[in-house]
Amino acid sequence: MSDPFARLNTLLKHQHVIDSVDGLLGWDEQVNLPPESADFRAEQMATMAKISHAAACDPEVGKLLTELESQVDALDEDRRAVVREARKDYDEVTRLPEEFVEEKARHSSAAYHAWHEARAARDFPAYAPFITKHIELAKKEADLQGWGDRPYDYMIDQHDPGFTAAKIDALFAELKAGLVPLVREIDAASANDGPSPFRGFPIGKQREFLEEVTAKLGFNYQRGRIDVSAHPFCSGNGADVRMTTRFQEDEPMDSLFSSIHETGHGLYEQGLRREFHHNALGEHVGMAVHESQSRMWENQVGRSRAFWRFFEPRFRECFHEQLKDVSSEKLYREVNAVRPTLIRVDSDEVHYNLHIILRFEIEQALFAGTLAVTDLPGVWNDKCEELLGRRPQHDSEGVLQDVHWSGGAFGYFPSYCLGNMIAAQNWVKAREALPDLDAEFARGDFSSLLDWTRREIHHHGRKYPTLELVERVTGRALSPQPLLAYLRERYGEIYLQSRGAD
Amino acid sequence: MSDPFARLNTLLKHQHVIDSVDGLLGWDEQVNLPPESADFRAEQMATMAKISHAAACDPEVGKLLTELESQVDALDEDRRAVVREARKDYDEVTRLPEEFVEEKARHSSAAYHAWHEARAARDFPAYAPFITKHIELAKKEADLQGWGDRPYDYMIDQHDPGFTAAKIDALFAELKAGLVPLVREIDAASANDGPSPFRGFPIGKQREFLEEVTAKLGFNYQRGRIDVSAHPFCSGNGADVRMTTRFQEDEPMDSLFSSIHETGHGLYEQGLRREFHHNALGEHVGMAVHESQSRMWENQVGRSRAFWRFFEPRFRECFHEQLKDVSSEKLYREVNAVRPTLIRVDSDEVHYNLHIILRFEIEQALFAGTLAVTDLPGVWNDKCEELLGRRPQHDSEGVLQDVHWSGGAFGYFPSYCLGNMIAAQNWVKAREALPDLDAEFARGDFSSLLDWTRREIHHHGRKYPTLELVERVTGRALSPQPLLAYLRERYGEIYLQSRGAD
Repeated sequence: MSDPFARLNTLLKHQHVIDSVDGLLGWDEQVNLPPESADFRAEQMATMAKISHAAACDPEVGKLLTELESQVDALDEDRRAVVREARKDYDEVTRLPEEFVEEKARHSSAAYHAWHEARAARDFPAYAPFITKHIELAKKEADLQGWGDRPYDYMIDQHDPGFTAAKIDALFAELKAGLVPLVREIDAASANDGPSPFRGFPIGKQREFLEEVTAKLGFNYQRGRIDVSAHPFCSGNGADVRMTTRFQEDEPMDSLFSSIHETGHGLYEQGLRREFHHNALGEHVGMAVHESQSRMWENQVGRSRAFWRFFEPRFRECFHEQLKDVSSEKLYREVNAVRPTLIRVDSDEVHYNLHIILRFEIEQALFAGTLAVTDLPGVWNDKCEELLGRRPQHDSEGVLQDVHWSGGAFGYFPSYCLGNMIAAQNWVKAREALPDLDAEFARGDFSSLLDWTRREIHHHGRKYPTLELVERVTGRALSPQPLLAYLRERYGEIYLQSRGAD
Repeated sequence: MSDPFARLNTLLKHQHVIDSVDGLLGWDEQVNLPPESADFRAEQMATMAKISHAAACDPEVGKLLTELESQVDALDEDRRAVVREARKDYDEVTRLPEEFVEEKARHSSAAYHAWHEARAARDFPAYAPFITKHIELAKKEADLQGWGDRPYDYMIDQHDPGFTAAKIDALFAELKAGLVPLVREIDAASANDGPSPFRGFPIGKQREFLEEVTAKLGFNYQRGRIDVSAHPFCSGNGADVRMTTRFQEDEPMDSLFSSIHETGHGLYEQGLRREFHHNALGEHVGMAVHESQSRMWENQVGRSRAFWRFFEPRFRECFHEQLKDVSSEKLYREVNAVRPTLIRVDSDEVHYNLHIILRFEIEQALFAGTLAVTDLPGVWNDKCEELLGRRPQHDSEGVLQDVHWSGGAFGYFPSYCLGNMIAAQNWVKAREALPDLDAEFARGDFSSLLDWTRREIHHHGRKYPTLELVERVTGRALSPQPLLAYLRERYGEIYLQSRGAD
């Protein structure tokens, strides 16, 4: 092997393939695993984690990187990006002692079980010590990684490199200032909407319809599939994407939109360049951009009038009986139903970002040391009242609702809201670039939008950091204003029309 | 690590877990893989094969074995078996150079595709060179393994240690002598039976029924599942067994009995002692015994009158309309239908062993050099006429029908027939030991038979070689006579009853 760049890629590809096997074990665990096979699956995943770690820490990778860095001027821009990102990954994985990685994995496993039990028992105090320990571990990890006194910035960087708590704080403050009054307005206008009228949508038909929709959006079922799991997710990579959804007869919108959401993730993975799946040119750039893809297809596209112009007839064909008393306008209002809830994952699009702002403010305070873990429930509930206008009755519908902290995944929540911002900002640009989108959607053609995302976003992989990528795509720095404008336009048209001239 | 036996087990367990991951990839490939994801799956499996090979060749295993062998008197009988079998595996895997393993894998892949195309095109000459090369590779492999001038014995040993071509030849000759006239008799008596009258059995109900049946037989769905694939198989291990079946509306007996067959394999895996899955005390002993388990549940149990006494009412409940003109006796005759076919996998129980004898005789001649690969089709067809009384019209229903040789799996076919012999011989013993079996089956209780197989067979894992295990279980050397007696009893009662006094 005389070409160090080629050799580096061979080793990166080896890592990528190993990690993909680990990913399949995770998918199978959620989709197929027999109830009493969990112990053995844990052994399989622990073994693969060790093999993966050994491949990622291969000293030869370090030597090749050093060699390539010494001749960086001879590399083109793409290869520099590959070396730069491989260096970041290599340093991060080799800086953590194996005992630390094992300790964190052990604690995450214990904390997950503790969270599960605490949520069922509505018993926050039983779970609190596990959060405390996870914060300690996060601080220790940040220290080992050289982030010293900025542990929360380190955690954010793990999900979205280039962002910091300060940057997010500024974006979220601006968003909050515009969003809270808008939400109040829409809440007032939708307050008398009853619960969903949808009942008894047969699951076979739901499945048929959502497979048609997601294929029409461009998901390639020749290189992917959709199955059922308790919580929808998207895993795998562009060579073999594994999405999931879930079905309830009275919740047809839940399975449909969770599928479109996961399809957005899947389209991103399928859009990354196959020959580079193992390096920075074909890897996703971060969670926020990933979420921007899922959110755009779910919300900007899937909840639009143009989308339903095309799909409503087929939807009614599938569910003739269930929809016979539902007008087109009522159907569209259900697609964009606004029903505030304390549970983030059940939240409508209008309220969703407030749930995230709440979590970000709390994580910041926890890491700054201005909020004690024991005080979490009270602060959570106060913030719920402030932001959502309602107070949890118990911690299972409050601070205990999310799984994330049990795995030590601090700094993850902001990605959801950043993804919404990026989706809205990209959307503005896409509509400028593709002025016929509405007409195309209305005839069931989503290809020009998909091509645009492939060209503008997917094609670059991880070459540009997120904030730079957003500027390249949209011509301006990331801002919450497009999201606010989008929400006002979409929901204003439905709920505030009589006041449209305000 | 001061205890070499404990350390050996740690390493064997590591291998076992890696191999189980590879097994899951194989299962997923057959059950779930999107059509265009095959290339990436091949990369994943090649990577896992390398990792598995490295673990199996770990020099520390060799050192530990040498250390344990030097103090073998200090080991109890069980531990000696573990060391003995681990030594066999270790020597076999380390004797093959990596290049040879890769060459064989590459050739198997190419030969598989060549076989697939040749079968579709009915073009044996296109496939012949691949068989020739596989025979060369098999001879080279036998030589590398120290079997020198006995390559076919080596291939047989790979599937069923302790057997040789000479031993099988003697068993099969005795079987053939009794079987050919019996088959002629039954053929004559069943010649006027028409095709199956079964049509339009809804697949959902087929699935429901077979899951009830297989659960009732004792398959633990808490540690296993059944899915759909093109060809039924059973994979995984007792911690997580993955069986498959296939469905056609006009072939309810095919899905049912293939499921019961795979359930027999699954029950064996689930009966192996969990704490020893990674060593000789908890591994299966060979293909013939594996097949004896699947065959006993499929045939001796599943096609018995007692079994149908219990399940017929439920079967009629599931398929009331389809069975309304089918009497109980006609149903039982369909369960045990005798319809000669040139295709092994579609063969009834009566003719099946003749298909195997044909293949064994051909493999023997190929390896002895008394049959040239180019002469295979003619010899195959002649033997078909001799054994089955009919001649293939083209090679796709003759020599091209089986996948086995394309993977170099010579010496595998005999296991199927040996499995039938062992099943029948065990069955005699089980009925002596458990005189109430019929009554138990008729009330849907299969537990005493399952417990007996667990105690007598599964519990021993790979501790005793197959021929010794058979003697321990049944008190006599393996013989084809119990199989002949069983077939005469079962099929004589149905087809030759008027001549029962002969």
